Amino acid sequence: MAKQLSGAGLRGQVAGKTALSTVGKSGSGLTYRGYDIKDLADQCQFEEVAYLILKGQLPTQHELAQYKTQLKQQRGLPQALKEVLERIPKDAHPMDVLRTGCSMLGNLETEHAFTEQQAVTDRMLACFPSIICYWYRFSHDGVRIEVETDDDSIGAHFLHLLHGKKPSALHEQVMHVSLILYAEHEFNASTFTARVCASTLSDMHSCITGAIGSLRGPLHGGANEAAMELIEQFSSPEDAEQKMLEKLARKEKIMGFGHAIYADSDPRNEIIKQWSEKLSEEAGDDLLYAVSERCESVMWREKKLFCNADFFHASAYNFMGIPTKLFTPIFVMSRLTGWAAHVMEQRADNRIIRPSAEYTGEAPRSVPAIEQR
Amino acid sequence: MAKQLSGAGLRGQVAGKTALSTVGKSGSGLTYRGYDIKDLADQCQFEEVAYLILKGQLPTQHELAQYKTQLKQQRGLPQALKEVLERIPKDAHPMDVLRTGCSMLGNLETEHAFTEQQAVTDRMLACFPSIICYWYRFSHDGVRIEVETDDDSIGAHFLHLLHGKKPSALHEQVMHVSLILYAEHEFNASTFTARVCASTLSDMHSCITGAIGSLRGPLHGGANEAAMELIEQFSSPEDAEQKMLEKLARKEKIMGFGHAIYADSDPRNEIIKQWSEKLSEEAGDDLLYAVSERCESVMWREKKLFCNADFFHASAYNFMGIPTKLFTPIFVMSRLTGWAAHVMEQRADNRIIRPSAEYTGEAPRSVPAIEQR
Repeated sequence: MAKQLSGAGLRGQVAGKTALSTVGKSGSGLTYRGYDIKDLADQCQFEEVAYLILKGQLPTQHELAQYKTQLKQQRGLPQALKEVLERIPKDAHPMDVLRTGCSMLGNLETEHAFTEQQAVTDRMLACFPSIICYWYRFSHDGVRIEVETDDDSIGAHFLHLLHGKKPSALHEQVMHVSLILYAEHEFNASTFTARVCASTLSDMHSCITGAIGSLRGPLHGGANEAAMELIEQFSSPEDAEQKMLEKLARKEKIMGFGHAIYADSDPRNEIIKQWSEKLSEEAGDDLLYAVSERCESVMWREKKLFCNADFFHASAYNFMGIPTKLFTPIFVMSRLTGWAAHVMEQRADNRIIRPSAEYTGEAPRSVPAIEQR
Repeated sequence: MAKQLSGAGLRGQVAGKTALSTVGKSGSGLTYRGYDIKDLADQCQFEEVAYLILKGQLPTQHELAQYKTQLKQQRGLPQALKEVLERIPKDAHPMDVLRTGCSMLGNLETEHAFTEQQAVTDRMLACFPSIICYWYRFSHDGVRIEVETDDDSIGAHFLHLLHGKKPSALHEQVMHVSLILYAEHEFNASTFTARVCASTLSDMHSCITGAIGSLRGPLHGGANEAAMELIEQFSSPEDAEQKMLEKLARKEKIMGFGHAIYADSDPRNEIIKQWSEKLSEEAGDDLLYAVSERCESVMWREKKLFCNADFFHASAYNFMGIPTKLFTPIFVMSRLTGWAAHVMEQRADNRIIRPSAEYTGEAPRSVPAIEQR
């Protein structure tokens, strides 16, 4: 007799082990391999954190330089992949583009054995910005961009491809922070998708393709896009206050606030909020950041709901000139590290993930002849 | 405090509700919506069973005719999808091809609202044989085939595209049976992948793309391919007996036997076995079927292991001239019905599937400066 779990959606049920992160434990909001997210965002580059998550320890200066060089060399796209991206229409969902690009890459550079898992992951880390920007610039601007740049980091590479010029030091720094904040988050739905797939001993591209599909869902990724659509509606902090109160009175769902796991605050919010403020000052903005702050105070005053990682990401990305529809693909470029590390962890101690179901359907019955239905 | 589950891989743990099937319940081995798999395989066409699984009841004669007409009209592929398939190399894994084809279709014919869920599922049911055969014939034979045929069924359409001629009545019948047997199987790993993805409210193509990736894993799909590779090694039943005993003595893993859920027998085996025998007679075969039977008796005598659904599928597909590497894609053409029905079921009563993990990693620690690592 199968055991009934108490929580819908396996909420609060342990479905496996991980050494990668803790989420919402008392005393530390979010840790990657024991390091507090605040310290990592404060002291590290994204490539250091990717190295930590994927390989188990922070790199030395030499190891980091080597790793970055290796990633830089893998930014190019195979011609067949470019030709696939050119066939995806402008109005496609950018997450569908990344899902298809990742899947196509799996045809061209298949992971034939698990000994290749680190290599195919590094390759994806290096070339996902190329995939999304190649499609975006071709479909929106009609240009075939050169995707191999000598930018120092993944975040700078992305901004360079998107805007056609090297980003400022501040923008590169904010990309490091943002990619660090989104890199790993325990058994969220996309990561769990990757682990279920990995548990059949399928290949890395299948696991990541599946995870992208799950992150695409509006209950998971996409909250930063929704937050942008929210704050764009307001013409001033006062306007934001009034309209937010109206939305609350109409019981509208407002994205970017609260969290399924965190009870009191999202440790990622105060970090990205600081950077959004810096970008606002740099941009001479007197609207978006102020509106965002007002939304934050209204939601806290009225509903005791705090901003999650997504809310101030919206204004931060906007200040860097990133189109709203590319917000969730940036999440992919980052979370790829967590997904791949979970796949490796699942493979190292695997049992196929195959739960049971409670049957709520028809009792046994006989098939009537078709003319008697 | 998260609750510890007893079984690894959520084995025996209820992770949700379903009205679609029962697996291994006492008294009935496998039922779809209350109907025994034996009755369905005996009396129905695959399209009837797909209708049952997706829409909740067996169709009348009129409804079945309408449904089949509708599916027939949707066999064509968009030009952009054909051009993508032409860029996938001959040596790609056919499951990677289907995963990419499904994902690309999602770019071209995106499910924009859940009201479209039945329509996009029917479209996939109709065109998956076109996707796999278009790629196969182009990459292997260098021809661009016409994928729109007037064959009466999905199975006949597949065989027609593969061989370039209409199949015999017997072969079409066996395809009906095979597609019925593989159509649905509760919370197996690929179906659970689809449900986790669906729980983020993602689109149908993402859910199915993810499920294909999970079915690709050697612990899940692919057992019929492995069974084929096994029986092809033997030159006679006596040779099979001797070599099987040697394999058992070496404790080699032998695919196509036993099952994680069924304890005594797989109800699908006796059905496909009968059809394999008929095909063997038609083909004038005096080797493969006899070898398969001998393998069955050796495994039962030596290990009390029974043939599962996959074992006699190997010889059956081989008698119909299907290349071994296309066995698992046929599984997709069939299981697509179960996956999509589970997605619809998840959407109708959703909570995001987000379990917890047991943390086994490092205790909190501070980040050392990079020059001190």
